Amino acid sequence: MDAGRDERSVTPQSEDFSAWYNELVLRAGLVDRGPAKGTMVIRPYGYRLWELLQAELDRRIKETGHDNAYFPLLIPESYLRREAEHVEGFSPELAVVTHAGGKELEEPLVVRPTSETIIGEMMSRWISSHRDLPLLLNQWANVVRWELRPRMFLRTTEFLWQEGHTAHAGEADAMRETMLALGLYEEVARDIAAMPVVPGEKTAGERFAGAQRTFTIEGMMRDGRALQAGTSHYMGTNFARAFDISYTSAEGRLEPCHTTSWGMSTRMIGGVIMTHGDDKGLVLPPRIAPYQVVIVPVGRGGEEVLAEARELAIRLRAAGVRVHVDDRPHLSPGYKFNDWEMRGVPVRLELGPRDLAARTALMARRLTEHGKEPIPLDTAPGVLPEVLDDFQALLLRRATAFRDDHTRETGDWDSFTEAVATGWALAGHCGDPVCEEDIKARTGATPRCVPLDGPPFSGPCVRCHAPAAYGKRVIFGRAY
Amino acid sequence: MDAGRDERSVTPQSEDFSAWYNELVLRAGLVDRGPAKGTMVIRPYGYRLWELLQAELDRRIKETGHDNAYFPLLIPESYLRREAEHVEGFSPELAVVTHAGGKELEEPLVVRPTSETIIGEMMSRWISSHRDLPLLLNQWANVVRWELRPRMFLRTTEFLWQEGHTAHAGEADAMRETMLALGLYEEVARDIAAMPVVPGEKTAGERFAGAQRTFTIEGMMRDGRALQAGTSHYMGTNFARAFDISYTSAEGRLEPCHTTSWGMSTRMIGGVIMTHGDDKGLVLPPRIAPYQVVIVPVGRGGEEVLAEARELAIRLRAAGVRVHVDDRPHLSPGYKFNDWEMRGVPVRLELGPRDLAARTALMARRLTEHGKEPIPLDTAPGVLPEVLDDFQALLLRRATAFRDDHTRETGDWDSFTEAVATGWALAGHCGDPVCEEDIKARTGATPRCVPLDGPPFSGPCVRCHAPAAYGKRVIFGRAY
Repeated sequence: MDAGRDERSVTPQSEDFSAWYNELVLRAGLVDRGPAKGTMVIRPYGYRLWELLQAELDRRIKETGHDNAYFPLLIPESYLRREAEHVEGFSPELAVVTHAGGKELEEPLVVRPTSETIIGEMMSRWISSHRDLPLLLNQWANVVRWELRPRMFLRTTEFLWQEGHTAHAGEADAMRETMLALGLYEEVARDIAAMPVVPGEKTAGERFAGAQRTFTIEGMMRDGRALQAGTSHYMGTNFARAFDISYTSAEGRLEPCHTTSWGMSTRMIGGVIMTHGDDKGLVLPPRIAPYQVVIVPVGRGGEEVLAEARELAIRLRAAGVRVHVDDRPHLSPGYKFNDWEMRGVPVRLELGPRDLAARTALMARRLTEHGKEPIPLDTAPGVLPEVLDDFQALLLRRATAFRDDHTRETGDWDSFTEAVATGWALAGHCGDPVCEEDIKARTGATPRCVPLDGPPFSGPCVRCHAPAAYGKRVIFGRAY
Repeated sequence: MDAGRDERSVTPQSEDFSAWYNELVLRAGLVDRGPAKGTMVIRPYGYRLWELLQAELDRRIKETGHDNAYFPLLIPESYLRREAEHVEGFSPELAVVTHAGGKELEEPLVVRPTSETIIGEMMSRWISSHRDLPLLLNQWANVVRWELRPRMFLRTTEFLWQEGHTAHAGEADAMRETMLALGLYEEVARDIAAMPVVPGEKTAGERFAGAQRTFTIEGMMRDGRALQAGTSHYMGTNFARAFDISYTSAEGRLEPCHTTSWGMSTRMIGGVIMTHGDDKGLVLPPRIAPYQVVIVPVGRGGEEVLAEARELAIRLRAAGVRVHVDDRPHLSPGYKFNDWEMRGVPVRLELGPRDLAARTALMARRLTEHGKEPIPLDTAPGVLPEVLDDFQALLLRRATAFRDDHTRETGDWDSFTEAVATGWALAGHCGDPVCEEDIKARTGATPRCVPLDGPPFSGPCVRCHAPAAYGKRVIFGRAY
């Protein structure tokens, strides 16, 4: 940081996006570093964000017929070995309990990195007839994956998530489920987090360990990089065969189930920060902002102003607004303005003796293109929900425009390398993993997804000029 | 089990209470056994119970000014050693991660058995001034304690809970907090779980490892045993000194904080089962019953009855009732009646062609002292919330009467041993740990608590006749 910079400000995005992020998550009070390598403490402000996002997702998961359940944290090591690709994918990241109750265990227990194996084992006990299908389960849980290059929210040794796990009588039903879950993620990202994500399918090299098909929603961060914000996997019968998840059909035949799994995690918080934040700090979408409105008493109004601020807060709360009165007596209004800007509160209301006399408050939106404007105290509870809805819509428009401005259809290698230096390239690709690796080595960009709604494309590969695979252009970008 | 008994029924409580419990939790679909020793899978029906209880407790925790946060699962082993009593108490129960990311760790990590140490470490970073106090935190999390004699919900290697952790400027404020948390637990147990618990203080021998004072709520199960259903601890400055949690007072002096912690866990589900259940199965308090009402189509009404059942369900749902239509075509009404009795649904509505003609449904309450009675379909949405409230109140009255019937004030050893064989004894006790041990060895009974509202008592110890301590009678009982 520059020596001249306010100690509570953060490095500008344009100077060092990564430093901006790392400083901001700490200064905005979202997280702190945990003692074990790569772990994070989620502080109340960050956890409330997660709770609000979680509530929206949980409601949708339940409404679509899934039941929450809870499976053990500790999984016998041998379970992971039953699905060959799965164990290969996760082995390097495992944390292993070797001692418990003062003794060495006969079989080590793995701290779950994901729960396909233990849930598969239980599904095999619970499913016998076609009448038991579909089995639609979800779990909210912590998981542990040892991270060599941890980063708060994005890659932490322990993170929180939900993992859906379902079993079906056939491929068609399982694929419907896979796409349903992806649709929930897209909806929550767009409508709640104001992140205009692209739903698409991963190429073979980016698939989940053990999956037959992996789908993703990809968001663009303000440095042009992609963030995988949720994934949904069709497992085919891979796990069903490994864990003997089978059912007797109506015709009396024993058949393997087709399973899916899908997850969204605290990583989404990182996505929100990097989609909307600016040099002043966080910019939070109202639908998940812990405080949607903060009221800051200003001037020398003393108790009278404070009483009015509290009264206004009560009326706003009754209108369904999450509001906070910053009554800290030892801090100046200017300090508080900066503080709440850093913490991304969508709307600030300033209230002083002169405002009180005029029966108004001075409203400042977090993205201040309109400047401040007075709003009448009496009608504020009616007006603010609309202001917040507008702010939510503005964030989505702004992020969509940014994403579109930084996405280019590219036919030749030069424009491709230019595009992925600052954003995404839509390009034909041959589908050969060797060519994928070559592109990654030269540009840092990887295929993010084959977008579901991409128009047909049958030209050459942008790198090797062989005929393009997938029938559409692929999104390439550098990624988190 | 008797050879002649229906395979879906359970051993009667009177025959073998423990077998009744162990069979019931599996048959009612609450849990299944996990693969690692002493772990449990919480199935959707059991997890929904937990979610409903959790929502009630979480709301109260937030309303009293506490913020949720999340701290890492894995704690450096050295943290536990900083508080001598704490490490001594928890060492035998620890699960230890020694390897991660393919390597042996330099310092082993403990899977949290409770989070005083890691939260204490963070509090010491976050607190510097008296303005930072009180710091009121809560965490919903899984914890692991290696159990030698596990039992579903009551003692499992992994369980779910909330743990409140707070820091205060002095003893008075910390003690207020300790009692506030105990009050929340008492309220949730009584008003939500219909468990008439006794709040009281633990004797020295039953204190939490590292606490200065431990308070508890104790419920009586239907076999007369006590269940500790929630605890609240005043730590004094023990953890503050171990983790350097201190603040600068308004007068500029550096002072240690006074801390508290308090927890309620999935153990409460075991308490609900053993407080209300009977030989037919679970009996669930409506306020946490996953389904408060189940509608079972009967007779040969076919689609017409089913359509009416679904329509009724929609109207009941709109009235705030959690209702389920059992439309499984391959099962008989009799099977379904038994099934929902086993699963403890408070109210069953039977709906057949004749009921439909009379525009009524036949209502059966789970405790059938009233028999079945017809209720008009049109007014059902108005009537059922009242029926459910009455049922909730009935459960609390019934459990209170049972508890009172099985609690005796005892002055002499013979009546004491008789009382603790079937319930609780209120008895004078000298407070000497050796005498406590002697009583336990002879009767299996331990001091459950010194009840907060017990009348003054100054007679002799029921066992050794030395003068009684505590100024009141102590509750003794065998316990889970």
